[in-house]
Amino acid sequence: MSTSDDLYAVADFCLIPMGTGEPSVAGYIAECQRILEKSGLKYKVGYGTNLEGPWSEVSKAIHDCHLAVHAQGAPRIATDIRIGTRTDRQIVPGTGNEAKVKRVEDILSK
Amino acid sequence: MSTSDDLYAVADFCLIPMGTGEPSVAGYIAECQRILEKSGLKYKVGYGTNLEGPWSEVSKAIHDCHLAVHAQGAPRIATDIRIGTRTDRQIVPGTGNEAKVKRVEDILSK
Amino acid sequence: MSTSDDLYAVADFCLIPMGTGEPSVAGYIAECQRILEKSGLKYKVGYGTNLEGPWSEVSKAIHDCHLAVHAQGAPRIATDIRIGTRTDRQIVPGTGNEAKVKRVEDILSK
Amino acid sequence: MSTSDDLYAVADFCLIPMGTGEPSVAGYIAECQRILEKSGLKYKVGYGTNLEGPWSEVSKAIHDCHLAVHAQGAPRIATDIRIGTRTDRQIVPGTGNEAKVKRVEDILSK
Repeated sequence: MSTSDDLYAVADFCLIPMGTGEPSVAGYIAECQRILEKSGLKYKVGYGTNLEGPWSEVSKAIHDCHLAVHAQGAPRIATDIRIGTRTDRQIVPGTGNEAKVKRVEDILSK
Repeated sequence: MSTSDDLYAVADFCLIPMGTGEPSVAGYIAECQRILEKSGLKYKVGYGTNLEGPWSEVSKAIHDCHLAVHAQGAPRIATDIRIGTRTDRQIVPGTGNEAKVKRVEDILSK
Repeated sequence: MSTSDDLYAVADFCLIPMGTGEPSVAGYIAECQRILEKSGLKYKVGYGTNLEGPWSEVSKAIHDCHLAVHAQGAPRIATDIRIGTRTDRQIVPGTGNEAKVKRVEDILSK
Repeated sequence: MSTSDDLYAVADFCLIPMGTGEPSVAGYIAECQRILEKSGLKYKVGYGTNLEGPWSEVSKAIHDCHLAVHAQGAPRIATDIRIGTRTDRQIVPGTGNEAKVKRVEDILSK
């Protein structure tokens, strides 16, 4: 779905299944990882899940996580997405999240 | 872009222009409202901006706000999106955000 | 708990009870409103709940909402807080959230 | 500031300096790390910064990051905080964030 005006997005999302009757969410997040693996996008699981790529693909991957988590039985899902774009520098695909952390580390190591 | 498996999304997003040299963001948010008006989706501005509709259209509208705010000169943008979907009840298009507030008010008025 | 270096905070939080066995959250959010009413802080319920005041008091009010929602039976809670501070202008207590919306409306009405 | 009813919080925050005239935020985030180091709390920098401990201490550490970033010249700051508490299990201090990731990895490795 990426098009010529599709901004490159560096994102992090935190998906919360609701109404599940159990406080644990690890099973749902694991299912999301299987979906993200299929998306071909670069991702990394932490408090939220880092994900980056063309905006439309990042959005579709998160949407498909919702579909998968609903299919696993969660009647409602609330997700928080932090998403950033920039036009001042070209981001080498797949390096946006790592580069952010590295720039901070470089400053602190001086 | 809405398709058969496109979940209905009730969202709220908070867009932050970065590197603009001025702390005020009202001009950028006003530009976003013009974009949202064109999207045809239901929206309402508060701390963030409520927005609801098919997931792909909601995502595209926010993406287009980024495009517009970059075009206004912001080199970088960070947006926080809260987005919810549910399969336990059918949401009448355009009523998702209002209905959430009303259910709380109904409980408090008892 | 407000002290001399306690920044004035304009916030919006979205509290999500987890593991409750029911997708509806209106009852929990209503309980939060009762807590906020007692806090004496300015608040307003929408997608999230606007809340403003000295940072420590805003934080304590949200913490006490967690305590109340746990007491109502939710074993786990995930909250997303957007919180802003600024030093470029003095915010008249209780007007921070409304003023943000008004500045956007003023621009659009021109 | 931790008291008997101070919930243990597992959090992740993303701090955004506004009105700085430069899109880069690495210098500000590095300053935050120095503040967090002094707080004595467990933290880890990624897209956002993981931080955990008693709610009041977590809140104060983020507040002090705002103070430090304002002192560095940012006139306005917008922060997104994801914060979770739970009463169904005891969290060993300092292990909340790591344990969340590990439970997902354990499921996927089966």
